[in-house]
Amino acid sequence: MKPSFTLKELSRQLDVPVQGDESTRIDGLATLKRAGPGQLSFLANPRYARQLADCQASALILHPDLASSVTVPCLLSRSPYVTYARASQLFALSADSAADNDLPVHASAVVSADARLGNNVSVGAQAVIEAGAVIGAGSRIGPGCVIGRDCRLGDNVTLYANVTLYHGVSLGDRCIVHASAVIGADGFGFAFDGERSVKIAQLGAVSIGADVEVGAGTCIDRGALDDTVIEDGVKIDNQVQIGHNCVVGAHTVICGCSALAGSTRIGRYCVIGGGVGITGHLSICDRVTVSAMSMVSQTIEKPGLYSSGTLLQESSVWKRNAVTLGKLSGLSKRVKKLEQVLPDEPAEPGKIK
Amino acid sequence: MKPSFTLKELSRQLDVPVQGDESTRIDGLATLKRAGPGQLSFLANPRYARQLADCQASALILHPDLASSVTVPCLLSRSPYVTYARASQLFALSADSAADNDLPVHASAVVSADARLGNNVSVGAQAVIEAGAVIGAGSRIGPGCVIGRDCRLGDNVTLYANVTLYHGVSLGDRCIVHASAVIGADGFGFAFDGERSVKIAQLGAVSIGADVEVGAGTCIDRGALDDTVIEDGVKIDNQVQIGHNCVVGAHTVICGCSALAGSTRIGRYCVIGGGVGITGHLSICDRVTVSAMSMVSQTIEKPGLYSSGTLLQESSVWKRNAVTLGKLSGLSKRVKKLEQVLPDEPAEPGKIK
Amino acid sequence: MKPSFTLKELSRQLDVPVQGDESTRIDGLATLKRAGPGQLSFLANPRYARQLADCQASALILHPDLASSVTVPCLLSRSPYVTYARASQLFALSADSAADNDLPVHASAVVSADARLGNNVSVGAQAVIEAGAVIGAGSRIGPGCVIGRDCRLGDNVTLYANVTLYHGVSLGDRCIVHASAVIGADGFGFAFDGERSVKIAQLGAVSIGADVEVGAGTCIDRGALDDTVIEDGVKIDNQVQIGHNCVVGAHTVICGCSALAGSTRIGRYCVIGGGVGITGHLSICDRVTVSAMSMVSQTIEKPGLYSSGTLLQESSVWKRNAVTLGKLSGLSKRVKKLEQVLPDEPAEPGKIK
Repeated sequence: MKPSFTLKELSRQLDVPVQGDESTRIDGLATLKRAGPGQLSFLANPRYARQLADCQASALILHPDLASSVTVPCLLSRSPYVTYARASQLFALSADSAADNDLPVHASAVVSADARLGNNVSVGAQAVIEAGAVIGAGSRIGPGCVIGRDCRLGDNVTLYANVTLYHGVSLGDRCIVHASAVIGADGFGFAFDGERSVKIAQLGAVSIGADVEVGAGTCIDRGALDDTVIEDGVKIDNQVQIGHNCVVGAHTVICGCSALAGSTRIGRYCVIGGGVGITGHLSICDRVTVSAMSMVSQTIEKPGLYSSGTLLQESSVWKRNAVTLGKLSGLSKRVKKLEQVLPDEPAEPGKIK
Repeated sequence: MKPSFTLKELSRQLDVPVQGDESTRIDGLATLKRAGPGQLSFLANPRYARQLADCQASALILHPDLASSVTVPCLLSRSPYVTYARASQLFALSADSAADNDLPVHASAVVSADARLGNNVSVGAQAVIEAGAVIGAGSRIGPGCVIGRDCRLGDNVTLYANVTLYHGVSLGDRCIVHASAVIGADGFGFAFDGERSVKIAQLGAVSIGADVEVGAGTCIDRGALDDTVIEDGVKIDNQVQIGHNCVVGAHTVICGCSALAGSTRIGRYCVIGGGVGITGHLSICDRVTVSAMSMVSQTIEKPGLYSSGTLLQESSVWKRNAVTLGKLSGLSKRVKKLEQVLPDEPAEPGKIK
Repeated sequence: MKPSFTLKELSRQLDVPVQGDESTRIDGLATLKRAGPGQLSFLANPRYARQLADCQASALILHPDLASSVTVPCLLSRSPYVTYARASQLFALSADSAADNDLPVHASAVVSADARLGNNVSVGAQAVIEAGAVIGAGSRIGPGCVIGRDCRLGDNVTLYANVTLYHGVSLGDRCIVHASAVIGADGFGFAFDGERSVKIAQLGAVSIGADVEVGAGTCIDRGALDDTVIEDGVKIDNQVQIGHNCVVGAHTVICGCSALAGSTRIGRYCVIGGGVGITGHLSICDRVTVSAMSMVSQTIEKPGLYSSGTLLQESSVWKRNAVTLGKLSGLSKRVKKLEQVLPDEPAEPGKIK
């Protein structure tokens, strides 16, 4: 069953006013470029305003300032992108609940008699829930998930397929964890005795707040002694690696393939770009943005935008520059020497010094 | 049962002529250095030609130009590496089919009554196939795989163990997906409302062409509204991350640990080296090669070879250069100033200006 | 049941002397800062010595030189960090065995009649063990693991949940493999025939020594013809990618998110930092340390510490430097030209040349 709403229904659920025909029926979302009849589109970025002219959507989410520029029915929002985000959830939810006629706990799942499941918990086929685990009401455990001993999941948590939670991991309400993510594996800790690496058992756990999203294939290691902590509202993309005893502040966003070495502390409302590496035992204050593929090897104490790395070039050009870079410190000294050899004023052409 | 062929049989199957004894029996492949009796080796790179002298192989795949330089039986091919690749498939297939006496659908697998399986589909132990999924003839679903609602797999697709396909993912004929890969997880999209990140439901899917290989642990996210698209013949290595709404052109190769941020478009016949990061919303034209660990942050419109990054050095040297690099723009200005101060001709030694 | 020991018991098991009350009861480990009554702490890094004054631990692991500076009971060790590592294992083991009252082979596991399990092997729920696999005594196979045909696991091996071993993989005694790791997937090998990539079947396997740890989500590919080899005592963190035919020498440590392209050889006792990329077909000698996020594109023949990459800066500053870096080779030539134009001695201020 495809989801479908009138603009009036959407207006009420999204708490934004309608301009135009309230009875317009909407059964999907689409970009300005691709939208057709029955679809709702949105203009979040003024750069795309010229696409409004050719848009075939039956309705638009639009900033009130632009309302007069179109004839099609509109939902008026001062934050069209946020309103689009909320609308997208309605369509997803609707598509989802249409399909969910599964048994609450699939017959093939293995749920310990010593686990406690809240109301309306669904457990997918082949999932495993070990002793002592507590799962809050309305949570959905995907097929093939393994939830270790004594894990604690809040209400309305969603685990997609093949997620692994080691023992003692806790997840707050409304967390979403994507497929093949691993939470609570041993932190990487060894004491070298001169001949070999002696394993340091990782006796802490992982504590995750509410409204956190964890991407596919992402790993968050358990702490050595204390817990690894992810605060409320943090959003973590795919294939991110978070070492033991890291603390990630509330509402921080970490893009794909980034890695935090052990004991890193990141503040609130930070944005860590994709492929960033943060070496261990350092701190990043609130509201820092680090651009993609940067290496962070020192504490950051001032909010702002930070980068490292070099720009792409044709390889032949890059190679010459990279080789020169290997002698950069020497080049700098040579320039200093030249400066010492020279008078301070410019040579006037033709004048004999 | 070990696979075994005569040179005559191999000649017919690989469509290349034999030089020497056609009845030579071959039961394995090996490198020039390690090959022994009963084994077939190959010379793909002329650099290794001097290894021919000591090679113990019973037969060789060789370029016709070199045929006169050896006495051992040969398969003659103008593309010895391609012929070796084809031969390797014969030996793999043979080893494989020898072992595959499993039931078509393992008793422990959970296959929805509303899924449709073609002829000769095998489903491994503990696998899950949800309602509406359609699996083409001859496809093999590994143990522990989860195939979501309404997925569409072509003929002769191979999924190794513990692969997750979210709902609505489509894979063309002969695709191979390695263990723990995740296809169709939510793209990473949020609208920030000033206080928190509001999730944008990802309503698109993932559409993958024929003959695509997806490496272990690789993640390909579903689109926000439109689909993420991987065209025919694309080969993707392990731990690659492909963001929502990317389009990867036919026959492009992406090496391990590379990441494409959302809405990246890559052309046909590109080669993306390992560990490359491509920031979002940009395009790369056909036949571009990007070297390992490069950062691509701008559109590339000209075919060719591109790089970024710095070369490895002893850390003490590296540090001096890295610190100087942090003042490079200033250094450049100082050089400019020096040039202004100076006459254009070289100082002749001994001459008083 | 929480683990609990007297200092006397710990002294005997860790083979270090006690100073003070041997009957002191210890039921946990903690950092100096957080330790409370009943807990054992340790001072591994002299930098933290001033924390001793306020420490609430019931006992300490301490270097003998510092023994006189405290009044609390102590375990005296010349390597406090190693002793802490060993102690952590006692507490982990104890917590673990308390909980392990599972059946040896869970009823939901699928174990081939042609697999051979040693004494006291435990197999988790939903695990799959294929024909020909041999599992050594005391090994523990986590829930959802898939062990392919003809794998060989030594004694006391631990596989956490959802690990995939492809066919023919061998693991030595006491190996630990974390969740979602994939060992033995196909190496990434294709021969390009001018139009498309022809797959090279990967006919080798993966051979892993004793006491190796493999992190969550890590992938180790099988060899093309010969095996990929990981020697004894190697420790590999999460999300590491090891290409086909790599050889990693004994006791080398590889931190998270690093990647070794195919046929790389790394020596013994190396430390590869996090996020390092090593391009293929090169060698690194024994006792090389590579710092985080470096790119290694040439053979390293001398032990030592190596780095590449650039330091983080505020993005506006970084951008100016990055743009200048793109012209570095030219800048170097300009400096050379300036040097040719100039006399060798410094200009004496006031003196007319």
